[in-house]
Amino acid sequence: MVKRKVLTVSTRKRVDVLDITESARLFVEEIGAEAGLLNVFVPHTTAGVILNEAEAGLLEDLKELLERLVPELHPYAHNKIDNNAHAHLRTILLGSSVVIPVEAGRLSLGTWQRILLIESDGPRSRHVILTYVGL
Amino acid sequence: MVKRKVLTVSTRKRVDVLDITESARLFVEEIGAEAGLLNVFVPHTTAGVILNEAEAGLLEDLKELLERLVPELHPYAHNKIDNNAHAHLRTILLGSSVVIPVEAGRLSLGTWQRILLIESDGPRSRHVILTYVGL
Amino acid sequence: MVKRKVLTVSTRKRVDVLDITESARLFVEEIGAEAGLLNVFVPHTTAGVILNEAEAGLLEDLKELLERLVPELHPYAHNKIDNNAHAHLRTILLGSSVVIPVEAGRLSLGTWQRILLIESDGPRSRHVILTYVGL
Repeated sequence: MVKRKVLTVSTRKRVDVLDITESARLFVEEIGAEAGLLNVFVPHTTAGVILNEAEAGLLEDLKELLERLVPELHPYAHNKIDNNAHAHLRTILLGSSVVIPVEAGRLSLGTWQRILLIESDGPRSRHVILTYVGL
Repeated sequence: MVKRKVLTVSTRKRVDVLDITESARLFVEEIGAEAGLLNVFVPHTTAGVILNEAEAGLLEDLKELLERLVPELHPYAHNKIDNNAHAHLRTILLGSSVVIPVEAGRLSLGTWQRILLIESDGPRSRHVILTYVGL
Repeated sequence: MVKRKVLTVSTRKRVDVLDITESARLFVEEIGAEAGLLNVFVPHTTAGVILNEAEAGLLEDLKELLERLVPELHPYAHNKIDNNAHAHLRTILLGSSVVIPVEAGRLSLGTWQRILLIESDGPRSRHVILTYVGL
């Protein structure tokens, strides 16, 4: 069985984090997924997706880390084209998709794991492609 | 065919690396996997999984790199909740799963590629979920 | 349906970026992939694969970022074995595979997303394993 759903979400700030776990959870429940893998894919180059805890302090720490490793203000070559090189580079470090096991209609996420879309060049409308492959 | 196995492993130090390649290799052999994909998933937020060489010097270099990019001692906001923000952030940079091709009952790993669980907040008992989807 | 193809590509410089999107696009078209997932896997420890824009300035920015975060000249322990610790560490940060949704024979990539092999220890011949799982 292969099932697919495209979510449309709106980020609210230049740098933002959206917890999309509930949408993914509902999707695997609705399609009656018995056992397989869910791919959560962000078809953009300045927003990515990760798995981790959605605690407010930690998300501030993540933003600070990304600014420290990949500062917004820097003489990037790409900024002659479009003023968002830092957003591309941060997305490269974070990644554009995650793959999560599914069993008996439920995501096999750990207690603290949440699916987090990381916006680095918002606010914008963003797509997320959910693809399930399995039984 | 979808097959799943949950491994339980024990990390031995605060920061540790466990080579879990052999367990994954045995799993795809035991289930008679002919052709497909293996997902190796760590359902935790302070331990991740990568693919690379398991040479002792390189693993020391990796620990030093992570300490340099994401130092343990830093005024993280998350540390008001739990004193392990660095472990979450390192895990975000490394990732929580890898996906490996399988052919004729064997992982298609390169000569030097090993599946490495990276513990950033141990020692602890950790789970690893192996999920095979294919023929 | 599971289909697999191994590409052989040649990198041209010590640090290089190869856009392999077209090969992946042709593969999913040729096999008549209707709906599923494509795994693009690099079976090496000093070259990885990412998704992002292939704009020349951005690729220079990426090389500069990797040199800033993981400098080539540094007293790495692994360099007693082989003088390429930085290449291993950069590959760990970037990752060794990407997973892309496929629908109606087409990769569901965003407008600017390209599949980029990132060479950190070239020039060399490199393999890329394409694995499709789906209908």
